Amino acid sequence: MHNLNWSPSEKKAARAAFDAALEKALARAMAEFKSRAEAAASPSDMWEIESFLRQRRREIDETFDFRYSQLPLVFARLMQSGLLEERELAGLSEEKLEIIRSLLSLAAER
Amino acid sequence: MHNLNWSPSEKKAARAAFDAALEKALARAMAEFKSRAEAAASPSDMWEIESFLRQRRREIDETFDFRYSQLPLVFARLMQSGLLEERELAGLSEEKLEIIRSLLSLAAER
Repeated sequence: MHNLNWSPSEKKAARAAFDAALEKALARAMAEFKSRAEAAASPSDMWEIESFLRQRRREIDETFDFRYSQLPLVFARLMQSGLLEERELAGLSEEKLEIIRSLLSLAAER
Repeated sequence: MHNLNWSPSEKKAARAAFDAALEKALARAMAEFKSRAEAAASPSDMWEIESFLRQRRREIDETFDFRYSQLPLVFARLMQSGLLEERELAGLSEEKLEIIRSLLSLAAER
């Protein structure tokens, strides 16, 4: 994975797919936050939301790692969690798509 | 302050005033949280709310210290921030009320 070559057009496609998934992840977190905040009825609900937000922020920070050496794994994870579809990676070489599919099926087997 | 004697009825009055102020502080935080959450329109608003909640939780934890040695200072602070009125401390001895008033006027002079 560390020795893959990324052409300029692949870099661009990767960036677009990455950004779209990030936007989707943020929108999901936002929707969950809004619904929890609206339902919050007590101080303890409020402190639970603080901890929910902290956890979500950390998960997003950890997941969205745009280093080319990490991208196949990142994309596999995003597909696994429904934030990315394979068609959004159409601009990548077949070699990279194969790697991502293998990582995804490995993850699915666990 | 460390050598004050707290009678059982003073302890009871102190606890009631302390609890009422805590409830008020939590209700204030809750109201501000609800209004910020409703207004939140972007992920960055959401992360600001996380940091607002963390800060409020810490402030409340630090302020509400129910050790008898700390109570006069705690009560003076609560009066200063409008969470407690002197009449709510009616059950305390004049000696303690004097101390609290002095602390409050010292704080006001700053």
